[in-house]
Amino acid sequence: MEHWYTPIEDDLKKVDAIIDGALTSRIPELQEMCDHVTSLKGKKIRPSICVLAHYACGGSQKEEIRRLASAFELIHVATLIHDDINDRSEIRRGRRTVHMEYTVPKAVILGDFMFAMGFGLAGSADKKVIDTIVNASSAMAESEFIQKEFEHRPAVTEKDYMNIIRGKTAMPIFAGARTGAYLAGADNEIIDAISSFALDVGLAFQIVDDVLDITGGNASTGKKVGIDIEEGKPTLPVIYAMSDPNNGKKIKKIFESEDPTDAELNDVLLLIKRTDALDKCMSKAGDIVKNAIPLLSCLKDSEYKNSLKGLAEYVVSRDR
Amino acid sequence: MEHWYTPIEDDLKKVDAIIDGALTSRIPELQEMCDHVTSLKGKKIRPSICVLAHYACGGSQKEEIRRLASAFELIHVATLIHDDINDRSEIRRGRRTVHMEYTVPKAVILGDFMFAMGFGLAGSADKKVIDTIVNASSAMAESEFIQKEFEHRPAVTEKDYMNIIRGKTAMPIFAGARTGAYLAGADNEIIDAISSFALDVGLAFQIVDDVLDITGGNASTGKKVGIDIEEGKPTLPVIYAMSDPNNGKKIKKIFESEDPTDAELNDVLLLIKRTDALDKCMSKAGDIVKNAIPLLSCLKDSEYKNSLKGLAEYVVSRDR
Repeated sequence: MEHWYTPIEDDLKKVDAIIDGALTSRIPELQEMCDHVTSLKGKKIRPSICVLAHYACGGSQKEEIRRLASAFELIHVATLIHDDINDRSEIRRGRRTVHMEYTVPKAVILGDFMFAMGFGLAGSADKKVIDTIVNASSAMAESEFIQKEFEHRPAVTEKDYMNIIRGKTAMPIFAGARTGAYLAGADNEIIDAISSFALDVGLAFQIVDDVLDITGGNASTGKKVGIDIEEGKPTLPVIYAMSDPNNGKKIKKIFESEDPTDAELNDVLLLIKRTDALDKCMSKAGDIVKNAIPLLSCLKDSEYKNSLKGLAEYVVSRDR
Repeated sequence: MEHWYTPIEDDLKKVDAIIDGALTSRIPELQEMCDHVTSLKGKKIRPSICVLAHYACGGSQKEEIRRLASAFELIHVATLIHDDINDRSEIRRGRRTVHMEYTVPKAVILGDFMFAMGFGLAGSADKKVIDTIVNASSAMAESEFIQKEFEHRPAVTEKDYMNIIRGKTAMPIFAGARTGAYLAGADNEIIDAISSFALDVGLAFQIVDDVLDITGGNASTGKKVGIDIEEGKPTLPVIYAMSDPNNGKKIKKIFESEDPTDAELNDVLLLIKRTDALDKCMSKAGDIVKNAIPLLSCLKDSEYKNSLKGLAEYVVSRDR
């Protein structure tokens, strides 16, 4: 098979164009910041799943679905900008984060600007679509609070973690797929199946992301390795590694430290790699995807259905 | 006449209830923060002008207009929370600001949560309504950038200032009135007149706000006196005072200072009070309102029309 995004390459180009069109300002610096952000091409999981779900359910509202897919991407990028402020991240997609490059106040405003533009693209859509987007946005906000509660706290469990990444990452992906299927006029049963599929893809995506935080992937994830641990974020590799009989105690101690040194950070990365935590994570992510794919069986065969499967497999095989 | 808000007291109560209903979360701390914010009753200029414009234009879509008025208030409060972060304000409406009480990251997220809820209330409205709201939001963001450009820069002119407060304060008030009139099915001519009126009210409102930053009003504005000067914000009283033949030079010098001492701040407040800057500002705000009121002449007489006039007069006579 070709790459999963081949059947929607045109749509994704249009999504880029819609976003570029929405992010225009007569203020030179604001425009420059918008360009800074849009020049960094992300993985576009959210808009892709929205468009693919729509087409896979037999939908053909090209204009409408591209507009909504752009809204999902804009809202996503807006939250990334604000997350980077809150996490004090210095690098994103291989470049300095917005607040590092342009100051925190300007990054706060840029995020708000992009939120407004995203909601503007989504606005005046069907009430159900708006509700789906708003629910996802509130789930994202709530999960940030739960995550903060567990920062540097070794008592965090796998269940807590799954709850966090459900809101943080899976819900917006769920919302994209749900919107796409709904606008295709699919039956409720199919809408629910494809939404569940997307939720699982989101969970697997975040688990792999958290593994890549430790391995650095192919060294071009574009983020600083170990930043999650530095910030004390409760991620699955750390949760698994803390229960390792040989290295768990030491990992726990560094994870608890509010201000770990660079040496400690290097140590903890090495220690985690010595445990089976990363393998366990990848195997869990793989299982989630493997169990999610049968959810697509309610869909008629199509290149879009294949692409949804391909996207899910990509999510757990990517190295960046 | 009774107080200007008397004819819409019921509507404003419903607006509070809609906002309370939207701002619910299963996360105790997020709920507490929402309650912290909603317990501080603001002046409700935005929702009031939205509802009043609707009724004054003969509209009777109570449910819809209250929902949109709530959206305007929520989006407004969301921007205040983010503004307070950016301005490092410590007090708002007499209480510690959200970021001071709950940390910056949580305040960023709360603002985003409230944005989402606000856009959720506005969502699925008419495309023209959404566009009006989004335009106002982007004007707000842009004006923050222009304002930053002039921080601590004595070269700022009255024209620059009017441009800034147009986007920052007047545009969202304009958007509220425009939406109210539009949903009443008013003629374009009337929609334009009432929107211009609201824009002027917004300009006058901000000028008075900037005067109150210096005088402290009746000592219960709920904000720290002189915070704008501390932050180097280019406000009209400062712009006028900097051209004072006797005190202008000293005022200019302190305004230019990136990190003025408390003694300098006290000094500059006293110096500004010695000039005619505050009188000139109040007289300008008064003139703006006086010239705006005739714009209402296209409306049939009603208690709502009277209230719009009363609101405009309140804006320039308030001491908090």
